[in-house]
Amino acid sequence: MTIRFEIVARCGGARRGRVHTPHGSFDTPAFMPVATAGAMKGLTPAQVRGTGSQIILNNAFHLLLRPGAERLARLGGSHRFMRWDGPILTDSGGYQAFSMAEIRDLDEDGVTFRSFIDGSRIHLGPESSMSVQHAIGADIMMAFDDCPPARGDLSDGDYRARVTAANDRTARWLARCVKAHGSRDTQALFGIVQGGTEPDLRRASVDAVCSHDLPGYAIGGVAVGEGSDAIHGTVRLTAPMLPADRPRYLMGVGYESDIWAAAQAGVDMFDCVLPTRNGRNGFVFTGTGSLRLRNATHAEDLRPIDAACDCEACAGGFSRAYLRHLFMAGEMLGPTLASIHNIRHFQRFMADMRSAISDNLPASFERQWPIAVQPAPPVTEGAEPSRP
Amino acid sequence: MTIRFEIVARCGGARRGRVHTPHGSFDTPAFMPVATAGAMKGLTPAQVRGTGSQIILNNAFHLLLRPGAERLARLGGSHRFMRWDGPILTDSGGYQAFSMAEIRDLDEDGVTFRSFIDGSRIHLGPESSMSVQHAIGADIMMAFDDCPPARGDLSDGDYRARVTAANDRTARWLARCVKAHGSRDTQALFGIVQGGTEPDLRRASVDAVCSHDLPGYAIGGVAVGEGSDAIHGTVRLTAPMLPADRPRYLMGVGYESDIWAAAQAGVDMFDCVLPTRNGRNGFVFTGTGSLRLRNATHAEDLRPIDAACDCEACAGGFSRAYLRHLFMAGEMLGPTLASIHNIRHFQRFMADMRSAISDNLPASFERQWPIAVQPAPPVTEGAEPSRP
Repeated sequence: MTIRFEIVARCGGARRGRVHTPHGSFDTPAFMPVATAGAMKGLTPAQVRGTGSQIILNNAFHLLLRPGAERLARLGGSHRFMRWDGPILTDSGGYQAFSMAEIRDLDEDGVTFRSFIDGSRIHLGPESSMSVQHAIGADIMMAFDDCPPARGDLSDGDYRARVTAANDRTARWLARCVKAHGSRDTQALFGIVQGGTEPDLRRASVDAVCSHDLPGYAIGGVAVGEGSDAIHGTVRLTAPMLPADRPRYLMGVGYESDIWAAAQAGVDMFDCVLPTRNGRNGFVFTGTGSLRLRNATHAEDLRPIDAACDCEACAGGFSRAYLRHLFMAGEMLGPTLASIHNIRHFQRFMADMRSAISDNLPASFERQWPIAVQPAPPVTEGAEPSRP
Repeated sequence: MTIRFEIVARCGGARRGRVHTPHGSFDTPAFMPVATAGAMKGLTPAQVRGTGSQIILNNAFHLLLRPGAERLARLGGSHRFMRWDGPILTDSGGYQAFSMAEIRDLDEDGVTFRSFIDGSRIHLGPESSMSVQHAIGADIMMAFDDCPPARGDLSDGDYRARVTAANDRTARWLARCVKAHGSRDTQALFGIVQGGTEPDLRRASVDAVCSHDLPGYAIGGVAVGEGSDAIHGTVRLTAPMLPADRPRYLMGVGYESDIWAAAQAGVDMFDCVLPTRNGRNGFVFTGTGSLRLRNATHAEDLRPIDAACDCEACAGGFSRAYLRHLFMAGEMLGPTLASIHNIRHFQRFMADMRSAISDNLPASFERQWPIAVQPAPPVTEGAEPSRP
């Protein structure tokens, strides 16, 4: 195995563990902040490390477009490139290619789209995604999968047909990914389970994906617009089906309550752009809810964002009044400090969750973090969409 | 005296010294980076401190407009606001009001302009400038002066008339500033000498300004567009006229060669937006010249910006290839790292200059820093204007 997973404590369905990778270990349940294009938007690696983050994400789609996979390989891969010496996980690039790129053709070989940088035609499929992720040098790579959208306005029959087709394609592509990945022992390939919100199709996808003996498995196709209850239901159903001795990764989720619900179902790994995307836009998380820093109510508020937080912004004594000023004045330091705070907020949440699992005190954790059991807040005025 | 200045070494006309302020000391010749609106554009105070900067600038004009002087006073002043516990110097706000603001009326009482934020009419004059700088709480405050533009297309007679009028107004305004400042002992007021490029008018302004016993004096009206030779000539003439036992501050200058020439004439303090403004735009300084990071030649260059530099970017192992990527991808981390490098570059230049003064080895300094004796480089494609 390229990575090693040990479980050190259990609490109901939740597990506390540790994943050992070629670039060091990370504790689970883990929150992985997203360094999309090889940078954590205004944070130095030292600042990322200072938030307590042990593993970060790179987006293969963005790095494929710029600086390009071959160039990145010549430069020694993403660890060397961005000076992050800890574990890195890459997505396959498929999700972004399907959802973000213009003029795309989807067929059995993958997706062809136009680069938003130079307009060139780029193909991404199972083999090329593996190749890109090999170039990046991520410790954990994700299979190239077909992620169907949420039900939307489809009839039950149409939705099931679409999810079934995605399941089948995901299974065929996984076999090609496994073959293309080969036996390299410095990078671990995770499979991704699809199946939408249909219990039997989730089961079918688990069976197909887990027929490959892989070092970890992810739950995909969640948080694509289906609402909080459906997310929780799907995760509670799917997570326990996955092999108990492998890390389970819920992709692109989410708010604190989503993470806690999923951790209780046995999920070990999480990623989300919420802390950085919201932080850049002046929305910050606290133990009791979120704040819009541009709000005039903060103009003379000398308190930190969250008195309970030990991040560089809160412990450093930067007031809400100052942070509001930075956002009103368009100063880059505002997004930087708000992102540092938000990532640290999630890492404190995860650290306390891991302690609660070790101590078997989930109720105590929920008293400590009321947001762990509150429904996800609505998107506030000016906030960017947070899912997935 | 609100500040104390000690000279510890001399080398020709150059002096090495130390200025003691209510918020700590700084070594001279000193370079002061500019935190215009109460933030060093993307750098935390810890990162600013890490560049070796001991004193920073705030612009009274920007802080007057936002967050506003009264609000800033209620928030405890700029040190508390931006979490910078070292010395702060503020300009008077006059220069920006004259040069940047729209719809301005200039008369004996000062300047009236429209706020670029809300369009409101704002007046700034000797008394109100002192009041704003008191609110900011800067350790060193600058007199409200009348800074005439460069000669431009004016005839000799018209230019002399204009500079003479500015001299006289500067002297009248200084008397009002001194009166408005009063006897407070926590903030030091510096006078500003004008006189353009006319030796006798410089002398006249020195006489008028230095008739006030002030803790420091600045050379203003330099680097307003008059060219490198005129800058050096004016500084060489003016600096030695200023009281030898007070720190001398050359405002808004400049490139390394300008700073070294002025230091040799006996100037002790410098500020310039070059390191941060150029850094934000991807232009970085090295010991042998400057680089445009967006240039394609850096795309696969694994070297740091400057192998001799010990800044967070260079010593941290961030390659030119990565920095280019950050600028091409519009990642905030690019401006942050380039600004850190550029400020550190200037601080290393100053530290070596101070050692050279102590050791009486100016020729050795010039061999070590060839850019100290090269003329200022032309503005490169895409660079913003650097003066003043």
